[in-house]
Amino acid sequence: MIVELINTGSELMLGRVLNTHQQWLCRQLSDLGWIVARQVAVADKGPDIQGVVRESLGRADLVIATGGLGPTSDDVTRDLIADLLGKPLHEDPAVLAPIIRYFETRKRRVPERTKLQGLVPEGATVLANGYGTAPGLAMEVKPNPFRPTGAPSWLIMLPGPPRELRPMFQETVVPLLQRVFPRPDLFVCRTLRAVGIGESVVEERVNPPLQHLMKAGLEVGYCARPGEVDVRLLARGPEATRLVSEAESIVAARLSGFVYGADDEELEAMLIRSLTERKQTLAVAESCTGGAIASRLTDVPGASAVLLAGWVTYSNEAKARFLGVRTESLAEHGAVSEQVAREMAEGARRQAGSDFALSVTGIAGPGGGTPEKPVGTVFIGLAGAGETVVEKNFNPFDRATFKAVTAQQALNLLRRKGLG
Amino acid sequence: MIVELINTGSELMLGRVLNTHQQWLCRQLSDLGWIVARQVAVADKGPDIQGVVRESLGRADLVIATGGLGPTSDDVTRDLIADLLGKPLHEDPAVLAPIIRYFETRKRRVPERTKLQGLVPEGATVLANGYGTAPGLAMEVKPNPFRPTGAPSWLIMLPGPPRELRPMFQETVVPLLQRVFPRPDLFVCRTLRAVGIGESVVEERVNPPLQHLMKAGLEVGYCARPGEVDVRLLARGPEATRLVSEAESIVAARLSGFVYGADDEELEAMLIRSLTERKQTLAVAESCTGGAIASRLTDVPGASAVLLAGWVTYSNEAKARFLGVRTESLAEHGAVSEQVAREMAEGARRQAGSDFALSVTGIAGPGGGTPEKPVGTVFIGLAGAGETVVEKNFNPFDRATFKAVTAQQALNLLRRKGLG
Repeated sequence: MIVELINTGSELMLGRVLNTHQQWLCRQLSDLGWIVARQVAVADKGPDIQGVVRESLGRADLVIATGGLGPTSDDVTRDLIADLLGKPLHEDPAVLAPIIRYFETRKRRVPERTKLQGLVPEGATVLANGYGTAPGLAMEVKPNPFRPTGAPSWLIMLPGPPRELRPMFQETVVPLLQRVFPRPDLFVCRTLRAVGIGESVVEERVNPPLQHLMKAGLEVGYCARPGEVDVRLLARGPEATRLVSEAESIVAARLSGFVYGADDEELEAMLIRSLTERKQTLAVAESCTGGAIASRLTDVPGASAVLLAGWVTYSNEAKARFLGVRTESLAEHGAVSEQVAREMAEGARRQAGSDFALSVTGIAGPGGGTPEKPVGTVFIGLAGAGETVVEKNFNPFDRATFKAVTAQQALNLLRRKGLG
Repeated sequence: MIVELINTGSELMLGRVLNTHQQWLCRQLSDLGWIVARQVAVADKGPDIQGVVRESLGRADLVIATGGLGPTSDDVTRDLIADLLGKPLHEDPAVLAPIIRYFETRKRRVPERTKLQGLVPEGATVLANGYGTAPGLAMEVKPNPFRPTGAPSWLIMLPGPPRELRPMFQETVVPLLQRVFPRPDLFVCRTLRAVGIGESVVEERVNPPLQHLMKAGLEVGYCARPGEVDVRLLARGPEATRLVSEAESIVAARLSGFVYGADDEELEAMLIRSLTERKQTLAVAESCTGGAIASRLTDVPGASAVLLAGWVTYSNEAKARFLGVRTESLAEHGAVSEQVAREMAEGARRQAGSDFALSVTGIAGPGGGTPEKPVGTVFIGLAGAGETVVEKNFNPFDRATFKAVTAQQALNLLRRKGLG
C-alpha cells in the first residue's frame, strides 16, 4: 500500500512556521504499519496544490492532505480539490450546525467567512472537528482518472492546526483506514536511544554483530541528535519480532552504559518514571539553562511528585540568597566554576529537602566568554548520590543547542550517578 | 527562478524526528528573494532518492538536497546522486585531511567509515564543514538530461545535522548562489504578530481595508499558532516596499492592542528588549508551566540582565517556603486559585527584589482536574504594575499545548499591564 502526505501552506514555503504534521502523521501511520513513501509541501496556490494532488493520486492508494480548510481567504484546498475532481460543493446544514454552536458556546458572533466551512464536495464524508471549526473530509476517488490502472485512491483532507488535526486523525481517520484498507504486514520498529557516544562509534560497535540479521531482512538506521544517537531496528513479515528482538539484545550489550531507553521515552520521562518508582525526589538549580531542565522534566505527566522545586538563578546574588552559595566562593572561583556548581547543587538539595539536586552554571553565549572560560564552558553538579559530583563540559554551540545539550548532559549525569 | 528542496531520511518517513530543515532553509532562501516552490521528503532508499532528484532536476533551476552524506551505512545520497548523474566518485585528499584533523584534535581514533566522506563526485565543488565531518557538495548539472529544455540546474547537497548544515549554508552556499544566479526581484515580506484574538476575527478586521492593496499585488496570509495569529504581508517588484508598508499601517491600526511585534521577534524577545531599555527587572514563579516561561525568556540573549530569579514550585510546601504563600490561603482557596496566584507573584517580586513578577498556577493535566477546577484551569498573576492583577483562563488542551498557551498568556499579561 502506497501512502503519500501533502502539506499545503504558503507560510511553510516562506519558512515562517515549522511543519510538525510530517513527523506526527508519519509516526501515527508507521505505528499502524503504513509507511509514508513521500511527503510534499507546496504553497496555497491553485496550480501547485492541484498539481501535487494529481501526482499523488496517480501513485498512491492513500493521500492525506493537510491545511487550507480554515475560514480565511488563503484557505483554498477544499475548493481546489473539488474543482480538480469535478465535484460540486454543497452547503451541508449538519456540518454548519456545530460550527455555529462552537461560537455560541463561546459567546462569540459567527464570522461570515466561517460559514464557508460548511461547504462539502459531493460524495465526501465529513470528519467532525471537536477542537475547532474546520471539518475534515474523506473521499474515495473511484474511478481514479489520474492513475494509469484506474485503481481507486482515498483522499483525506485535514485542517492545519495540530490540536484540531491530531484528535481528528485518531478519532475518525484511523477507524476509517482500518475499515477500508487491508491489514498491513506485521511491522516491528524499535529505536534504542544512547547518550554520551558519537554516531560513527555507535555504528562501528553494532554493525558487525548485526550483519547476519540484516541479511535476514533487518533494517538498521542511525540518527544523531543534540546529545543523543538513536539506533533504529526495523523488520517486516512473520520473522519481524524475532529479528528486532535479537538485534535489540545485541545493540544493548554493545552499547552498555550508553543506552538509556527505547522508542519514545525521552530521557526526562525515564528519569521521572524511575524516581517515582524509587519514591525519590529531585530539585534543580539552573543558571545558564534558565529553566530548560525543569521545563523538560515538567513536560512529563506526574513530574509534580518528583520535582520538589526548581530555581533559575542567573545572578550571583540569587545564587547566594536562594541557594546559599558562599559569596567567597563566587568571589574566589567565579560563578562559572566547579565550586559554585557544587554549592548550588548542595544548596538546592538542602532547601528543597530532596533526595537529589542537579545544578548547572556556565556560559551560554553569545556574549560573556573569556580566554579562560570561553562561551560553551559549563559545570554540571549532582548532589545526593554519595559525594557531590561536578563535571566540566565544553559545548561551544549556538544558544539553543547549548541549552539542549547541557540539559541532556545534566539529566544523563543524574541517570549515571543517581540511578546507577 | 524555480527552487526545490529535498529532505532525505528514513527517520523522517517513520516520523521518528522532526524535519527542521524545511523551515530553516525555506526561510533563508525567501529572505534572499527565492521562494521554494516545492519541498519533498523521502526515505534513504535508492529508487526514492534517485526518483525525486530526477523529477526536481526536471523542473527546478536550483535543487537543494539534505541528509545522507554522513559516515553510516544508511548515508547513501552522495553515491546515489553520483550514480544518477553518471559521475564517478574520487577520493579527495584535501577533503579527507580536515576530517582526519577533526578526530585528531578531539584525540579520537578516525573510524574507518568516516573516510567515505572524502569521496567526491567528478566535477563537484566541495563545501567545507566547520562543525562536523561530512562535507557538502555543489554541482552544476549541465547539460541537464532531465529537463525538457536541457537547461542547466544547480544541485547542492548538505549534511543532515542542523548545526553543520546551517553554518555551511550561510558561509558557502549563499555566496555561491549570489554568484551563479541573477539577482532576484525586489521581494518584501513582513509578518505582524497578534495575541489574544482569533484568526477569523483578524481577517474580518483587516481584509476589507486591504482590498485596494491586494488588487495592486499585495499577498496576505494568516497563520494561527498556540496563543497567536500571524498576518503575513508580501509583495514583489518595484512597488513592493510601498505596498507592504501601507498594509502594515492598516493592519497595525485595525489590530491595535493585539499586535505585539513583527517578523521573527517572539513575544519573549520583545519583552526582554523592552525591559532592558527601561532598566526594569522580572521574576517568575511557575507551578503548572514548570519552568517553561523562564526557559522561553532565557532563550533570548541578554535575558540575564532582566530575569533576576525564577522558581518552579509545584508543591504547596515549596509555594509557602520559597515564595511566602500563606498556608491559610492554600488551605482555604486551594493551590489553583486567584489568591495563591496573587501571593506567588507578590512573593516572587519581594524575594527577587524585581520590578515585576509573573506567577502561574493551574492544572496542566492529564490528571488532577475536579468538577470545579477542570484540567486546563489556570490563574496567571502579575505583581508590580500598580495593583497585582490576576487573570483566570481555561486552556483545556494537551499538556504541551497547555504549557505553550499558558506561557504565552502570562507573557502577554506582562506586555499589556506591565509595559502598557
